[in-house]
Amino acid sequence: MTMTATLSAASLAAPPPPAIPQLERPLGSEALADGLRSFSTSYYARHPFHQLMHEGRLTPLQLRGWVANRLAYQRAIPRKDAAIISNCPDPEVRREWIQRIIDHDGTGPGTGGIELWIRLGEALGVPREEMVDERHVLPGVRMAAESYVTFCKTKPWIEAVASSLTELFAPDLMRKRIAAFPEHYPWIRAEALDYFKSRLVQAPRDSQQGLMLVQLHCTTVESQQRAFEALAFKLEMLWVMIDTIHNAYRES
Amino acid sequence: MTMTATLSAASLAAPPPPAIPQLERPLGSEALADGLRSFSTSYYARHPFHQLMHEGRLTPLQLRGWVANRLAYQRAIPRKDAAIISNCPDPEVRREWIQRIIDHDGTGPGTGGIELWIRLGEALGVPREEMVDERHVLPGVRMAAESYVTFCKTKPWIEAVASSLTELFAPDLMRKRIAAFPEHYPWIRAEALDYFKSRLVQAPRDSQQGLMLVQLHCTTVESQQRAFEALAFKLEMLWVMIDTIHNAYRES
Repeated sequence: MTMTATLSAASLAAPPPPAIPQLERPLGSEALADGLRSFSTSYYARHPFHQLMHEGRLTPLQLRGWVANRLAYQRAIPRKDAAIISNCPDPEVRREWIQRIIDHDGTGPGTGGIELWIRLGEALGVPREEMVDERHVLPGVRMAAESYVTFCKTKPWIEAVASSLTELFAPDLMRKRIAAFPEHYPWIRAEALDYFKSRLVQAPRDSQQGLMLVQLHCTTVESQQRAFEALAFKLEMLWVMIDTIHNAYRES
Repeated sequence: MTMTATLSAASLAAPPPPAIPQLERPLGSEALADGLRSFSTSYYARHPFHQLMHEGRLTPLQLRGWVANRLAYQRAIPRKDAAIISNCPDPEVRREWIQRIIDHDGTGPGTGGIELWIRLGEALGVPREEMVDERHVLPGVRMAAESYVTFCKTKPWIEAVASSLTELFAPDLMRKRIAAFPEHYPWIRAEALDYFKSRLVQAPRDSQQGLMLVQLHCTTVESQQRAFEALAFKLEMLWVMIDTIHNAYRES
């Protein structure tokens, strides 16, 4: 499926719908993993905004709008991970999952993924205080990010884990950005890409852990169905977020 | 106020009610701390079951009922702390608060406060599998522990922090146990008390952190009132828990 920036906003408001399988019997562990991986076609990497980004066709203003808005999502991540831990009765799982909170919040001031994202914003030309006070964050973006926290608070922990499996698709997107930024946006200094580089290590580790948990716990038709639906929810949420940014900072 | 084991169950079902102040203007920072500390008279250290414990008058069966039931509470703690983090927008606070989860869950299998509590159970004569599968946990105890997790999930994070301030009163109780156990229950081996010893270090650190946050964030009449109410809720919850255990394992 090809998309261009000339499509109307309405037709872009949802991702290409993933094919949620109608199961009659539970999938085996590998088939379940393959089914979840096949949802990559709905990942927001395919949204026109990302296509424009990777082709070097975003203006500095659009990049700034993007980076300032995405902070709301970055900031939601430790809270959604804590929500998963708050619902999870297994100390083994909690003990591993807590690493995600530490990755984003850091171990002291000036460390962690949220801080790296703020630095990316500065490198793109958004003053730190304008990042931190979220004055540029669009209500739709905030709502999307908060809907993810709410999902993780209110759904069984394993469904929230399944929703995190968009991480399976993240490394490709990170690699594209790491290649595209120096090529197309040479005014952005190299250290600004540290966040993307850190995710190249963290996302594969996290998604493998998440996938194994889903394979272990979702062994019935019902639980597998819910895992697919959880991942579809998350894909839609990410798409809504980038689409909101895309429309708000449209230049033409 | 003196209580004896001859009082009826009904009259023990709630703690001596703490005097929640009716504020007309906000308390200063120190007065707020003093007010919260004054709630110690409602702490479950005063429940007859604890009195009997510290006087060496509990039977092995009663101690076993206590230790097996209290595990449900120990296991709820990391989930309630994760709930607080899931509601807290401040990475500085989250970064400190996460230590509580690590303290209880440990950093690997066989570590952490929950494991120490299971070992205490074993030392008191409850087989590990009977601790772990919670077969002895009374519904009322589970309900009390879960009500604490729900409180922390659903209330503003600073109120949940205020509810944690029973930690202010914990070290005294730990010291009493560490003194009473070897004296009155010499059949319990010394390593069994490691949990109490770990809390002697953790509880003062945690309660100071919690108190400072409440002093910092609760500066209006309304927010101070809610902090007092949150602490009263937690005191009642602890009391209900010990009272349920007391009544279930009564011997007479």
